[in-house]
Amino acid sequence: MTRLIEESDAPPEVKAVYDDIKATRQTDWVNNFWKALARHPATLKRIWSNIKEVMAPGALDPLTKEMIYVAVSITNNCSYCIASHSAGARAKGMTDAQYAELLAVIGLANETNRLANGYNVPIDPKFLAD
Amino acid sequence: MTRLIEESDAPPEVKAVYDDIKATRQTDWVNNFWKALARHPATLKRIWSNIKEVMAPGALDPLTKEMIYVAVSITNNCSYCIASHSAGARAKGMTDAQYAELLAVIGLANETNRLANGYNVPIDPKFLAD
Amino acid sequence: MTRLIEESDAPPEVKAVYDDIKATRQTDWVNNFWKALARHPATLKRIWSNIKEVMAPGALDPLTKEMIYVAVSITNNCSYCIASHSAGARAKGMTDAQYAELLAVIGLANETNRLANGYNVPIDPKFLAD
Amino acid sequence: MTRLIEESDAPPEVKAVYDDIKATRQTDWVNNFWKALARHPATLKRIWSNIKEVMAPGALDPLTKEMIYVAVSITNNCSYCIASHSAGARAKGMTDAQYAELLAVIGLANETNRLANGYNVPIDPKFLAD
Amino acid sequence: MTRLIEESDAPPEVKAVYDDIKATRQTDWVNNFWKALARHPATLKRIWSNIKEVMAPGALDPLTKEMIYVAVSITNNCSYCIASHSAGARAKGMTDAQYAELLAVIGLANETNRLANGYNVPIDPKFLAD
Amino acid sequence: MTRLIEESDAPPEVKAVYDDIKATRQTDWVNNFWKALARHPATLKRIWSNIKEVMAPGALDPLTKEMIYVAVSITNNCSYCIASHSAGARAKGMTDAQYAELLAVIGLANETNRLANGYNVPIDPKFLAD
Repeated sequence: MTRLIEESDAPPEVKAVYDDIKATRQTDWVNNFWKALARHPATLKRIWSNIKEVMAPGALDPLTKEMIYVAVSITNNCSYCIASHSAGARAKGMTDAQYAELLAVIGLANETNRLANGYNVPIDPKFLAD
Repeated sequence: MTRLIEESDAPPEVKAVYDDIKATRQTDWVNNFWKALARHPATLKRIWSNIKEVMAPGALDPLTKEMIYVAVSITNNCSYCIASHSAGARAKGMTDAQYAELLAVIGLANETNRLANGYNVPIDPKFLAD
Repeated sequence: MTRLIEESDAPPEVKAVYDDIKATRQTDWVNNFWKALARHPATLKRIWSNIKEVMAPGALDPLTKEMIYVAVSITNNCSYCIASHSAGARAKGMTDAQYAELLAVIGLANETNRLANGYNVPIDPKFLAD
Repeated sequence: MTRLIEESDAPPEVKAVYDDIKATRQTDWVNNFWKALARHPATLKRIWSNIKEVMAPGALDPLTKEMIYVAVSITNNCSYCIASHSAGARAKGMTDAQYAELLAVIGLANETNRLANGYNVPIDPKFLAD
Repeated sequence: MTRLIEESDAPPEVKAVYDDIKATRQTDWVNNFWKALARHPATLKRIWSNIKEVMAPGALDPLTKEMIYVAVSITNNCSYCIASHSAGARAKGMTDAQYAELLAVIGLANETNRLANGYNVPIDPKFLAD
Repeated sequence: MTRLIEESDAPPEVKAVYDDIKATRQTDWVNNFWKALARHPATLKRIWSNIKEVMAPGALDPLTKEMIYVAVSITNNCSYCIASHSAGARAKGMTDAQYAELLAVIGLANETNRLANGYNVPIDPKFLAD
């Protein structure tokens, strides 16, 4: 169905990205997302460059970033992304209790988002300071 | 447009929730979301009870929970919720640098969610361990 | 900003649709949605024809149909559609108590949708009978 | 993949919720959604409490509430929820003709929501009465 | 699971639509979408009539229209629609390079949509000319 | 409300991006989206770099890319993005008739996406060739 570019078949420019993914993540495999993007090497390079920059430790720690990724992926219902970023969060130390609370917040936010829309709630002036 | 139940007009069962909101949050005002829900006291009580339980400190800290709330609200494009939970996160200590990284992760997740869908990427067996 | 085709400026093919809208709804005015679509008469005619067929009384009564429309519009956060179909539902008899319950169901469904995604719940075989 | 808590393995606090689900619904089984939530008993109890309150007969009848649930679930594309709430609606008497009309309204609402956004239609003052 | 109305079992009003689909598309088969809609012939006829009108060559060529369809379907994460309209676009001449660029635009638009929401960017007056 | 970094106040790294935007687009102004991103220069540089690469002429022409951007933005209901990319498409030659057809396709795709979900249509094997 979906054509994946395996490491053994990867042209040099793709192989270089795969190698950087493995080195950056200190792992020995490349997940399917990258093997699918590799059908268009410019996209592979661009997206990996974005992920590497955005997901690096910074003002937010890597686990928090993975949980934010999960929040977006569940809200958008992207099965692949839910699976991959939940695994990523667990690999960074997320406990079962943290995952349960993450899902509870995601669920409730989706509920109150619609209540705010449905009741057409005007934004409080205090919230607009910045 | 939207009818809001001000504290001065609140019947006792609504006033009791407003008082609990202020006590729990250690603040002296109630934001418009609750004043809109108060049109239906059973909904006001139910949603406040959910928020109080879900947003309490637990396995995740309150700031992380607020940022997850912002991630969902931006993905769903709920203006009120973006304003209120961004303010909530700032009140809990979120810096400008953290907000910028939060938005960068949210944006990128929304992008890769669609690339995963569009390329129909099969879930790696390693991600399905749990 | 948005160019609206007022009744007084409407060419005959647009005027004919406006007249059918007013006759079908037994009202004396046309709301802005149609005046915006009228910029492209083929779209105006096509969408009105769809609305007239789909929203007519049938196996479901008109009020139920309006509330379903509100449920979709709130989930998608379409301000215009929330305002117009909430007004439509009220015109067909929806009470404040019904609106409050409608919003409660919409909110909760948006929450459990994400919990089902996040927990990756397998569909029970009993649900797949038809 | 997803760990489900079967009734035979359920700790007492989970078993109590399962029993209440079966008693309230007058059925002899518990569907997978609850067995997945049971991994975090506090979430199981909280969500069941919400569902029990919101989906009870009130100003809206239970079948209408199930159809609203289907409308949200289809708009969000939650496969599990579409399957479970469509089955729930059929169990409450929804006919094939009603389901077809429900889907027709959902589809059309999703279409006109985008036309309203795309044409940036200003809200008619008459719709803002309440 | 989903009941499909095969051509051999189709009543005359359904068969007439199937024949028009095949004639219009100059093909010898009908895809499952129509066989599912055929459970409610009025919906089958209505949706086919809409598709036939909207997807016909006009101010936009058919390939551009298929790519727009793919953009919406990926954003909404409709697996069936992604598969069918991607196939439709390829049948109309879309190359692998075009598909890769299409997906790149879709992904980036989904990202910047959220950045615009999250930063609450005010619309430039110059954009509101029409 | 939203803090925008005007050209006159821009630090050198921001000014450099603004200058590249103006040179690339052969225009003399910078729209608000970039002035909001400029609060976090790393994000400004990263997103501009992505836009410059993805929106450049390639296998798809710039007008087609702008229309795809509009399709995503309307589906997500991002007001800013609808305004800016509709203006962008008009600046690249989009006619009123093309805009009307673009919106018609977007609307219909949003409708049939939900019908495909609601009827749970199985993907035709012929669509899975690639």
